[in-house]
Amino acid sequence: MAAVPLIEYPDAPPRVRAVYDDIMATRKVDRVNNFWKAIANDPGTLERTWQSIKQVMGPGALDPLTKELIYIAVSATNGCEYCIASHTGAARKKGMTDEMFGELLAVIGMANETNALAAGYRVEVD
Amino acid sequence: MAAVPLIEYPDAPPRVRAVYDDIMATRKVDRVNNFWKAIANDPGTLERTWQSIKQVMGPGALDPLTKELIYIAVSATNGCEYCIASHTGAARKKGMTDEMFGELLAVIGMANETNALAAGYRVEVD
Amino acid sequence: MAAVPLIEYPDAPPRVRAVYDDIMATRKVDRVNNFWKAIANDPGTLERTWQSIKQVMGPGALDPLTKELIYIAVSATNGCEYCIASHTGAARKKGMTDEMFGELLAVIGMANETNALAAGYRVEVD
Amino acid sequence: MAAVPLIEYPDAPPRVRAVYDDIMATRKVDRVNNFWKAIANDPGTLERTWQSIKQVMGPGALDPLTKELIYIAVSATNGCEYCIASHTGAARKKGMTDEMFGELLAVIGMANETNALAAGYRVEVD
Amino acid sequence: MAAVPLIEYPDAPPRVRAVYDDIMATRKVDRVNNFWKAIANDPGTLERTWQSIKQVMGPGALDPLTKELIYIAVSATNGCEYCIASHTGAARKKGMTDEMFGELLAVIGMANETNALAAGYRVEVD
Amino acid sequence: MAAVPLIEYPDAPPRVRAVYDDIMATRKVDRVNNFWKAIANDPGTLERTWQSIKQVMGPGALDPLTKELIYIAVSATNGCEYCIASHTGAARKKGMTDEMFGELLAVIGMANETNALAAGYRVEVD
Repeated sequence: MAAVPLIEYPDAPPRVRAVYDDIMATRKVDRVNNFWKAIANDPGTLERTWQSIKQVMGPGALDPLTKELIYIAVSATNGCEYCIASHTGAARKKGMTDEMFGELLAVIGMANETNALAAGYRVEVD
Repeated sequence: MAAVPLIEYPDAPPRVRAVYDDIMATRKVDRVNNFWKAIANDPGTLERTWQSIKQVMGPGALDPLTKELIYIAVSATNGCEYCIASHTGAARKKGMTDEMFGELLAVIGMANETNALAAGYRVEVD
Repeated sequence: MAAVPLIEYPDAPPRVRAVYDDIMATRKVDRVNNFWKAIANDPGTLERTWQSIKQVMGPGALDPLTKELIYIAVSATNGCEYCIASHTGAARKKGMTDEMFGELLAVIGMANETNALAAGYRVEVD
Repeated sequence: MAAVPLIEYPDAPPRVRAVYDDIMATRKVDRVNNFWKAIANDPGTLERTWQSIKQVMGPGALDPLTKELIYIAVSATNGCEYCIASHTGAARKKGMTDEMFGELLAVIGMANETNALAAGYRVEVD
Repeated sequence: MAAVPLIEYPDAPPRVRAVYDDIMATRKVDRVNNFWKAIANDPGTLERTWQSIKQVMGPGALDPLTKELIYIAVSATNGCEYCIASHTGAARKKGMTDEMFGELLAVIGMANETNALAAGYRVEVD
Repeated sequence: MAAVPLIEYPDAPPRVRAVYDDIMATRKVDRVNNFWKAIANDPGTLERTWQSIKQVMGPGALDPLTKELIYIAVSATNGCEYCIASHTGAARKKGMTDEMFGELLAVIGMANETNALAAGYRVEVD
């Protein structure tokens, strides 16, 4: 059970609805995920987080799929099940194949291994 | 100070030299980093880790630069200074621009933020 | 399923019952949480952990509610669902409002974001 | 050495100077910390992060000192030395005494201990 | 629900079956765990990970039970429920008693506590 | 620079000296480490932490060297440089050989890798 009630569209105040509308329009979907419905309990955080995500995850010097892969790498390292699930879904929509997913996780695994080795051996920056 | 003496090439046993030679040949460089010189204290781990890194970080469904970005994402999340430094250097060699680095870190930052929000709100997978 | 059977009061040895009694008396509740029933499998850890928690979480230079907020911050960062759930409940009992919870999570989120940025940019202490 | 050159005020473009000016005015100080000078390499992240920090860390249902304590709790859990140092300084400026700092760390320590116990015993939410 | 379908033995290609056969023969069991069935979606990672685990977890200067305890310590610190569950089971098969499990978790808990204290107090290596 | 002044023996109040004396007597050494000198700023935490460490790290169902290995596993996973350094030293005093250290880190590395794989593939407990 979530720590807070999820705010559904019909029950949402105008300020929250405006964000939901922008999420759906930007992503070309007709619903918003539980993450947004949860943080909508704090409309300021909802607005700020959505504006940031929209700005950060959009196209730029890195393409949106690459950004999703980076997101998954952080989420798997933190063990955030919700985030892994939702961003794996998002990455697939943006073109991530099974082969790419397999390689992504292989890199994530190796990086976590060598991070621990570098820490344990206390290797100095060269 | 590292936890172990770094094994320099002239002092390395043949088994370790063979790995060093392969690292330098594969990466087209004339030295190996401290990380390898540290784990060379355990030649089995050196061989296994290098073979895995060589296989995982090479070209595939994901290109080598994308893999370096993923590596940095894991390393920044874990706070592994050595790994961040060495893989930032590797990524730059493979073409990472300042703009890409800035966007990479922006995504890493947002992912760590939303991971904590999803955990704190205990959002359920939808 | 937990890794160990939960030790219920009627089945608990006197040493464990004494801790359960003190938990219930201190907290003015009539049951103990699963956490205590689990670590009761190791009575030494139960006694030591309860004594420490009782000493650390009580009133002092920081008030008990502030201490609960700090607890939640650690737990959300570690992604410990059990701990987030139980300490969110404890904080609410001690007066945490919806607004406070929203601000707490906003700070936790920003701190995790900027921690990752500071690590990734390798910013030196000034 | 940081991953990027620090952007000093005289060398900063107008967009960055505007943020620096707002940081100094808001905090009533005459310099900005290395963190801001580092992320100023990516002006979009500088602007976004400062706006978010300014909004999140200001007074609200939680007072600014409590927010600094929460920040330190996240930073100590993540082992982010830069963030611990800068926010410990900020908390002291806002009134954190030695006693409060001692209790803060005692709570952070206990929370990390019990998080690991709850994970290891796989305690279920009750 | 896992991120990928689990590859069951009858549906597995020869390359995957060979690994499954080796896992079952090495561990003297007649089934493989979900972990292997999941990563079998990427046969290269399956082969590499199994070869590494087989080499690393076998007897050496440290006995296999001690290695399982170390594995649990990492997994509890990372909050990886699957890994805690499977390696707790493996450790019990190799002789871990209730007393040993209790002491293991007590050490894991204390280490996580003192890690946070050392970070928060920014103690320098002596 | 540490967050607090280190409390040296000649400057320590009796309550702190008593703990220092017990640390030196228990460990048969003639000085205490920086960790204790730092947390001595909060005598209650010093007493509580030392009593817990003394109880938890002593001989029991697990021998003291095995406990040090577990401590290092947690510390390397958390990237706590101070803790890795001090407990690697302690483990060597208790008999950890180079071979054991190499195997310890190999297990720590693999566990961190497979933790990330299990999280990323969202493998369910079986």
